[in-house]
Amino acid sequence: MTSFQLLLVAGTHGNEINAPWLFDQWNKKPSLINTNDLKIKKVIGNPIARKDCKRYVDRDLNRSFSPELLMNSEIKDLEASRARELIRDYGPIGTNPCQLVIDFHSTTACMGSSIVVYGSRSYDLAIASLIQKRLQLPIYLHEGDNSQKGFLVESWPCGFVVEIGPVPQGLVHNKIVNQTLLILETCINEISSVINRQAIFPKQLIVHRYLQNIDFPKDSLGIPNAFIHSAIQDKDWTTINADTPLFVNLEGDIFRLSEYSNENQVVPVFINEAAYSEKNIAMILTKKEALDFDLSWGKELYELVSI
Amino acid sequence: MTSFQLLLVAGTHGNEINAPWLFDQWNKKPSLINTNDLKIKKVIGNPIARKDCKRYVDRDLNRSFSPELLMNSEIKDLEASRARELIRDYGPIGTNPCQLVIDFHSTTACMGSSIVVYGSRSYDLAIASLIQKRLQLPIYLHEGDNSQKGFLVESWPCGFVVEIGPVPQGLVHNKIVNQTLLILETCINEISSVINRQAIFPKQLIVHRYLQNIDFPKDSLGIPNAFIHSAIQDKDWTTINADTPLFVNLEGDIFRLSEYSNENQVVPVFINEAAYSEKNIAMILTKKEALDFDLSWGKELYELVSI
Repeated sequence: MTSFQLLLVAGTHGNEINAPWLFDQWNKKPSLINTNDLKIKKVIGNPIARKDCKRYVDRDLNRSFSPELLMNSEIKDLEASRARELIRDYGPIGTNPCQLVIDFHSTTACMGSSIVVYGSRSYDLAIASLIQKRLQLPIYLHEGDNSQKGFLVESWPCGFVVEIGPVPQGLVHNKIVNQTLLILETCINEISSVINRQAIFPKQLIVHRYLQNIDFPKDSLGIPNAFIHSAIQDKDWTTINADTPLFVNLEGDIFRLSEYSNENQVVPVFINEAAYSEKNIAMILTKKEALDFDLSWGKELYELVSI
Repeated sequence: MTSFQLLLVAGTHGNEINAPWLFDQWNKKPSLINTNDLKIKKVIGNPIARKDCKRYVDRDLNRSFSPELLMNSEIKDLEASRARELIRDYGPIGTNPCQLVIDFHSTTACMGSSIVVYGSRSYDLAIASLIQKRLQLPIYLHEGDNSQKGFLVESWPCGFVVEIGPVPQGLVHNKIVNQTLLILETCINEISSVINRQAIFPKQLIVHRYLQNIDFPKDSLGIPNAFIHSAIQDKDWTTINADTPLFVNLEGDIFRLSEYSNENQVVPVFINEAAYSEKNIAMILTKKEALDFDLSWGKELYELVSI
């Protein structure tokens, strides 16, 4: 019997309330989800921000897991403290050690159901490939973006984010709850299949690799003076080219991809995510790639769940 | 030459950012909108809440115009003070007296472009009828709801709310900005036509009159344990009947209209407006009515603009 334990996090951002709502229902009725006897810990990432229905109190919790913040106990703001607390309680050598974490988010962008992995860790690619194979959902591979660091899942040996949208902040939506539930059950099933040595990894996985962040056009005061063009609003995961309009202002001036990138055939994601405007991100450009599955990834994942 | 002055308010709720964004662009480029030489004051309702992108700081500004709050100068919280300030500056006997106010909002509900009038004031019905005639948009007539009082526009002789959705809070959306712009221009044109004695009032106007608020089903702790059923999510302004499902929980239990109302053929609005969950409102039921246009309404409106 393995001592492997799965950590499920919801409400890392306090105004993304669908997964926390689902966790509450599940707590009240444990039979709601079949856990296949998997050992699971579930936790609300930022319960205080959740209470106020805001993304965070002092800083973005999902950017607070950087070594600088985690190792500097002088920094005592709410999210820096909460990050250390979560690792102390559920980290790989914590009180209730968990080896794999899934962090459930929602977005105002029209992302559908998707997975975000950070860096190209073999464990993450292995488990993501199983979920993609089952649900055909897109994977965003976030790496090489020096402006954004300190994601929660990076503090665990294996972990990924589930991003589901579009849904406004602070609103429980039938479709989003059901999509969250489906992915949650699929994750549990696939992790169980790894533990039971019955996982069948695909030959390839498709990822959308981070290229660059695109900010809104702004005036001299730093205020956006154009908005997302209707040609790409709600078109996350669609391939666009140099001529595609990204922004338009009220006078009809159009800002095309070619003004921002020499790339052609790129795929924008997180288009008009409300929480990203403060990060100066109107959308993120990615490049679609097929990765050949490396058999060692699967072997390493088997080892992780066999502790 | 009349001294009539129009007050335009945006950002009464600090996280409804489309109209404030439009006002900013308009301030930077006055020729953006043709004002037909109408005297216009425009103001951000709650600039401090807007800066933090939250609905309000201490209390909902759009429930802070009740006589109890306005007349009690001991109550000094941000929104109570701001309400008094707005009336002092732009009220009908203020420093810059305005006789008619339009308060631009957005909603997460799928309301399209709509008008909200409070009570059945003749001025309001007269101007709303002109805008409805021009744009065929629905009018929600809010009256008789004792749980909600103190709306901004009630402090002016004539005034109404423009509600546009769906749009998440804190996000500028191409479609919402353009819808706001269209209604704004239409309002200016119709008010000008009244001033110029060229308005042609319709014989009837269609209103959706308030019937009752419906709250989410809740557990013993007051937490919602069901969500809006997909049969009505995004179906604002659609006639429903006793059998229509309003809510469903994760076990599939359905809560139908007949459990909440003896009415049949009612029209829900503000379905799943994120900001209303704290007000215990999952949706508002209305009854569609045709009102015969009373010629005295038009006469009174003519008098209002002729001061």
